[in-house]
Amino acid sequence: VASSAECSSHVTHVELHRPEKRNAMNQAFWSEMIDCFNQIAEDPECRVVVFSGAGKLFTAGIDLMDMAGGLLRPDADDTARISWKVRQTISKYQETFSVIEKCPKPVVVAVHGACVGAGVDLITACDIRLCTQDAWFQVKEVDIGLAADVGTLQRLPKVIGSGSLVNELALTARKMYSDEAKSSGLVSRVFPDKETLMAGAMEVAGEIASRSPVAVQGTKINLIFSRDHSVKEGLDFAAMWNMSMLQTDDLMKSAQAALEKKSIKQVVFSKL
Amino acid sequence: VASSAECSSHVTHVELHRPEKRNAMNQAFWSEMIDCFNQIAEDPECRVVVFSGAGKLFTAGIDLMDMAGGLLRPDADDTARISWKVRQTISKYQETFSVIEKCPKPVVVAVHGACVGAGVDLITACDIRLCTQDAWFQVKEVDIGLAADVGTLQRLPKVIGSGSLVNELALTARKMYSDEAKSSGLVSRVFPDKETLMAGAMEVAGEIASRSPVAVQGTKINLIFSRDHSVKEGLDFAAMWNMSMLQTDDLMKSAQAALEKKSIKQVVFSKL
Amino acid sequence: VASSAECSSHVTHVELHRPEKRNAMNQAFWSEMIDCFNQIAEDPECRVVVFSGAGKLFTAGIDLMDMAGGLLRPDADDTARISWKVRQTISKYQETFSVIEKCPKPVVVAVHGACVGAGVDLITACDIRLCTQDAWFQVKEVDIGLAADVGTLQRLPKVIGSGSLVNELALTARKMYSDEAKSSGLVSRVFPDKETLMAGAMEVAGEIASRSPVAVQGTKINLIFSRDHSVKEGLDFAAMWNMSMLQTDDLMKSAQAALEKKSIKQVVFSKL
Amino acid sequence: VASSAECSSHVTHVELHRPEKRNAMNQAFWSEMIDCFNQIAEDPECRVVVFSGAGKLFTAGIDLMDMAGGLLRPDADDTARISWKVRQTISKYQETFSVIEKCPKPVVVAVHGACVGAGVDLITACDIRLCTQDAWFQVKEVDIGLAADVGTLQRLPKVIGSGSLVNELALTARKMYSDEAKSSGLVSRVFPDKETLMAGAMEVAGEIASRSPVAVQGTKINLIFSRDHSVKEGLDFAAMWNMSMLQTDDLMKSAQAALEKKSIKQVVFSKL
Amino acid sequence: VASSAECSSHVTHVELHRPEKRNAMNQAFWSEMIDCFNQIAEDPECRVVVFSGAGKLFTAGIDLMDMAGGLLRPDADDTARISWKVRQTISKYQETFSVIEKCPKPVVVAVHGACVGAGVDLITACDIRLCTQDAWFQVKEVDIGLAADVGTLQRLPKVIGSGSLVNELALTARKMYSDEAKSSGLVSRVFPDKETLMAGAMEVAGEIASRSPVAVQGTKINLIFSRDHSVKEGLDFAAMWNMSMLQTDDLMKSAQAALEKKSIKQVVFSKL
Amino acid sequence: VASSAECSSHVTHVELHRPEKRNAMNQAFWSEMIDCFNQIAEDPECRVVVFSGAGKLFTAGIDLMDMAGGLLRPDADDTARISWKVRQTISKYQETFSVIEKCPKPVVVAVHGACVGAGVDLITACDIRLCTQDAWFQVKEVDIGLAADVGTLQRLPKVIGSGSLVNELALTARKMYSDEAKSSGLVSRVFPDKETLMAGAMEVAGEIASRSPVAVQGTKINLIFSRDHSVKEGLDFAAMWNMSMLQTDDLMKSAQAALEKKSIKQVVFSKL
Repeated sequence: VASSAECSSHVTHVELHRPEKRNAMNQAFWSEMIDCFNQIAEDPECRVVVFSGAGKLFTAGIDLMDMAGGLLRPDADDTARISWKVRQTISKYQETFSVIEKCPKPVVVAVHGACVGAGVDLITACDIRLCTQDAWFQVKEVDIGLAADVGTLQRLPKVIGSGSLVNELALTARKMYSDEAKSSGLVSRVFPDKETLMAGAMEVAGEIASRSPVAVQGTKINLIFSRDHSVKEGLDFAAMWNMSMLQTDDLMKSAQAALEKKSIKQVVFSKL
Repeated sequence: VASSAECSSHVTHVELHRPEKRNAMNQAFWSEMIDCFNQIAEDPECRVVVFSGAGKLFTAGIDLMDMAGGLLRPDADDTARISWKVRQTISKYQETFSVIEKCPKPVVVAVHGACVGAGVDLITACDIRLCTQDAWFQVKEVDIGLAADVGTLQRLPKVIGSGSLVNELALTARKMYSDEAKSSGLVSRVFPDKETLMAGAMEVAGEIASRSPVAVQGTKINLIFSRDHSVKEGLDFAAMWNMSMLQTDDLMKSAQAALEKKSIKQVVFSKL
Repeated sequence: VASSAECSSHVTHVELHRPEKRNAMNQAFWSEMIDCFNQIAEDPECRVVVFSGAGKLFTAGIDLMDMAGGLLRPDADDTARISWKVRQTISKYQETFSVIEKCPKPVVVAVHGACVGAGVDLITACDIRLCTQDAWFQVKEVDIGLAADVGTLQRLPKVIGSGSLVNELALTARKMYSDEAKSSGLVSRVFPDKETLMAGAMEVAGEIASRSPVAVQGTKINLIFSRDHSVKEGLDFAAMWNMSMLQTDDLMKSAQAALEKKSIKQVVFSKL
Repeated sequence: VASSAECSSHVTHVELHRPEKRNAMNQAFWSEMIDCFNQIAEDPECRVVVFSGAGKLFTAGIDLMDMAGGLLRPDADDTARISWKVRQTISKYQETFSVIEKCPKPVVVAVHGACVGAGVDLITACDIRLCTQDAWFQVKEVDIGLAADVGTLQRLPKVIGSGSLVNELALTARKMYSDEAKSSGLVSRVFPDKETLMAGAMEVAGEIASRSPVAVQGTKINLIFSRDHSVKEGLDFAAMWNMSMLQTDDLMKSAQAALEKKSIKQVVFSKL
Repeated sequence: VASSAECSSHVTHVELHRPEKRNAMNQAFWSEMIDCFNQIAEDPECRVVVFSGAGKLFTAGIDLMDMAGGLLRPDADDTARISWKVRQTISKYQETFSVIEKCPKPVVVAVHGACVGAGVDLITACDIRLCTQDAWFQVKEVDIGLAADVGTLQRLPKVIGSGSLVNELALTARKMYSDEAKSSGLVSRVFPDKETLMAGAMEVAGEIASRSPVAVQGTKINLIFSRDHSVKEGLDFAAMWNMSMLQTDDLMKSAQAALEKKSIKQVVFSKL
Repeated sequence: VASSAECSSHVTHVELHRPEKRNAMNQAFWSEMIDCFNQIAEDPECRVVVFSGAGKLFTAGIDLMDMAGGLLRPDADDTARISWKVRQTISKYQETFSVIEKCPKPVVVAVHGACVGAGVDLITACDIRLCTQDAWFQVKEVDIGLAADVGTLQRLPKVIGSGSLVNELALTARKMYSDEAKSSGLVSRVFPDKETLMAGAMEVAGEIASRSPVAVQGTKINLIFSRDHSVKEGLDFAAMWNMSMLQTDDLMKSAQAALEKKSIKQVVFSKL
């Protein structure tokens, strides 16, 4: 379902690739994602990820046909035991998107066409969101009788500024189009079509990939920590982080390039 | 002061009704609100609330004439004992707005004309905020010599994205008009006048009311929990919540309607 | 580097004054800032601060020439001991900007021209941000090989609504211009040029200075507490705060002015 | 089930009074407790509570016959809706013991004979625990197939020092006798029999009742806050609390009595 | 290094088995532990674990010869990159003991002879600690130049009541003998020799194994949650947990056995 | 009031020295303490502190005559402004004891005779508590009409295992003698008289001083962090701490000494 390829220097491209099913997430998807991002996390060549969908749209969300049975009707002797298993399943599915966040390499997601249901759970776990003019987003879960539990309700309020909008989207399942996605801050840029979108995503990824991996990955780790903690806790974390991370040769290399007015892209950093 | 009526299928309309006093909040208001929302919380027929104000404007805030004495000059023997009573009073007033949040049914608030002082405390405790073109908002407390303590300073930073704007509004008591309210994310939609506003609010409420109450109320509960916790804590909460809440017939009913391309409005859900 | 002057009634003006070096922050800066704001915190005449930069731009950030040596190459016997000292240094630098936040008097920052690197750390610790049309902002740290650790990564996500934008700025070091700064909520107002900016900043400061210092400083303290805590904790804090702070004469003075339709600027409040 | 009486100066005695059923907690108990402690909280005459059980033993815990049906088999249409109601019921029962903690007046509990199941939930919510030589304690819940949910698992680890012992008691449901209760810190004193126990409890209560109610109730409130927060948060809370609570005449009265070597019992404090 | 065997009904025995090296933990140990406890967590036959050491003593701690190189001297290009790898290694080692805690089945640890260094990290992650008369414990890390980082400093303060003792042990590396281990609450029982210790551990384990696994594992999960959260959070967690877990047949089976005065050991519970 | 002297190798002795006033804490004390411990924190020669009292007893607590005026009757225009100043004063006094905790060098406190009121605040901020047979402790604050606010109510529950005992001591102001102090875990050892106490304290201090300062100070910092955080947070902190702190030569020096069976006291560690 998810395929990944080194598409350019230090940038890994991950693609939802099940276009005949509108990139709907089937059972295989959940474990493939975990393997994929664990590999990326440990691959010293990769410094940044571009994530996109193959075909006509980004993703239609969960493949209900393929999924529902296993999740909702586990085989067990009483309600408590069924609940026990349901909880384990949900936790496993949550992990599918949390790996994106745990992976210290930034993930730039490029959305074209529709991004529905679990697709929103997915993109809110990414670091930078870009989309096409024709993209739309839909928090679909209330429409099928449940409260979203693999990331949308937890992360959406922390990536969009307007509480009212978050609630409206989650409670009514209405579609949000690219212009509102931009003005609300869900995405940081809108592109005319998929081609320019992918070029834009690659350019952003390239900018990130050219910088010190110690700096970039430390920045992601600190940003995620800060999101979930007070400013004081975030500062203490940063001081502890940098007491060793400042002891990198990348600092001198970067500073020297800046002084010499050389492009950062010419600097060669060691692997991390 | 507050009156409530079942105005349509599963939607309860609560109205600030003291138009001759610009819906100013007097002593009766504080306990009426608590009774009103406790009743709504337990009424299985009600699935969503529309909240609005009667007359020319939404609310002028606290009725200083009616309120101040009791609050500020409690009868007690020394400063410590006065403080003890003031704290009790503030806590009681805070509860007046917190009941909106504790009620698991979503509250859509429709603001027309002015929304001043305690009115802002009130609307920030609601889930979805809509307003008319002529609406304006004012965090009034510094103008009367105090730091807002019944919700505005606590909730406004979590419903608006711009920290700078929140601080400016709270520290200068300047008015904010509907366009800035929309661009800053305080409200998610603006309507030309009160009539269209009320129709719009009812439509949003209708959308919510037509969905599974298990899904809708679970969504509100999870959103509020997530606002106040880290993403990891929010995910753990959601897994525990849904280990039982997924075991609802609403899921099958909703999924079936989706598969059959039927409107969700035709599905009959059990009471909650 | 930083000079401060009482520029009008109850307003203190602090200026980055090293225009020949583009207001770059040298070693002296870090301790001067702490002294400056500790003094302001204790000066009963000062009720609000306007912070700006002398010369052509707000600040170019850290003066790398002057700073790097001491910070990055402390003299010590092994890596652990170097790390120990680096951590102490970072903590001290963090304090330089945290004093702005700990000072109970609101700080209005006026940015013109460039605001680079540590300049962003600085302004995110201020309460209200204003800028000129020609202003631009740059989170510069990844460009020199490090994760920002004196405030930007910790505070920026809490002052801007869009998570995607915060990440993009921090991971790519791209410039953000005034229009995006306004639409994203980093600043709450944009002015045509430095002159109108300074006039605007003074006007906002004047509005704040004319209100009760008990109300204003309590508002800042409550807003900062609320940013870092849950709504429930914020409400409990406010109740405890106001159990004594409501027992101020400022309340009566302010209320009376309101009733008499007098301007708040005519009211004389006691020092705090 | 629970009866309360003013038994001496400023001391209220609350007694589990259903001796023919070994003070088992029936449905009436849960709401009576809430009413009882809400009344105590607001009664300015009461400064401290002594809690004990009538008859041969303290309490046999929940009256399973009377309770189980309602709790475990609520009438609802699907598992989600049953779970919804079970959660509401548990929350209500939790409140029954939490009222002890929310009541600012200290509660001294005197245990004789057996203290089983919900009895342990009850006493861990009290402030001071005393018992007779023949007393024994049993965390009974695993024996009837459930994880304790109305206080024992939450509070026991915070009132006993040994984690190993807490786990052993909760996982095996073994009895703990008075000597181990004393050495482990569950109780702070053991008395030979019920008569001396009650006299001892009254004496401790008398000591507390003779002190300033501002000091005593502030102490309880701060202790409970500190249990659940970091030292830093506890200190900040205390500073806010005492900024007004030190402004009490009780301080001068107490200090003067100390200087004049008078017994604190002779000092007359105002009501709180 | 670690071997596990089903030694009696529903009880799994895990043994440190490297007696010729005093059960010192070598590189293989760290991954074996994770596999072992992950298996136990998923084995529906296992309800409780007994953990002990083969040979003359429980464990001498880390096998410095075997371990140090890899941990302390990772191959990397600069200090930042070395630190990055050291952090990964520590996290992996922490996980080795945290699996004990994440496994919902209670772990009874039986210590004889010496328990040194990483042995203390290990036992503090277990639920119930028992030891022989000749057992002694030593927090060894300061002796080899480091602050304990795989559990002792984090868990010891939460399993022993005396802060002074915890600090003394950790800062001086002095030995603590069985009597002090008992009086301080580190262990809940002391046995004359290894034979009686193992019999005692099996008896405690048998008591636990005979009870409802829904009740037992829910109890462990709630106890660990409560240790790390406030009482209020612990209560909310318990209400959510039990809204489904009370819907188990084990409740009726257990209650009926109690009413019929049958031993709980005769009740047959479904697997979990 | 407080005098400090280097009394032996790497051990600094701090003494309350106002024996003619029973070491009562006067106004000078509060700032002297801060200076004293800030100096110790920065003195690379000092690795551990022994804290004791001169004359007949440890301390009688606050010198009410000298202190009360300033604290309780600040000169200000209304209750709010008085409260503002009282809060500042309390915070400053809290800092007096918190410096002990912020100083990374362990503090061994030796108590003889009486330790009353603020004395208990002081010793609970120390790391290791030792006392003489004739020592007694008294949480005195309720006796003078206030809730303890400079450390006792915040730290005592975290250094003693028994919640019941903590509450009893704080609510009744009864004396606790050395045997109960030992059994409750307030102190970790009791000595026959002051002479043996001081020798014992010096011995414990000597043990600490002979170990790696990187290990010892890291241990203190981690223990204090862990006290106030969950186990998971404590582990993450430790991993970040040690990613650099393991890169110390002390590790090799210590390990080698251990392998060569040399006393750690013979190892020479670099300053920290």
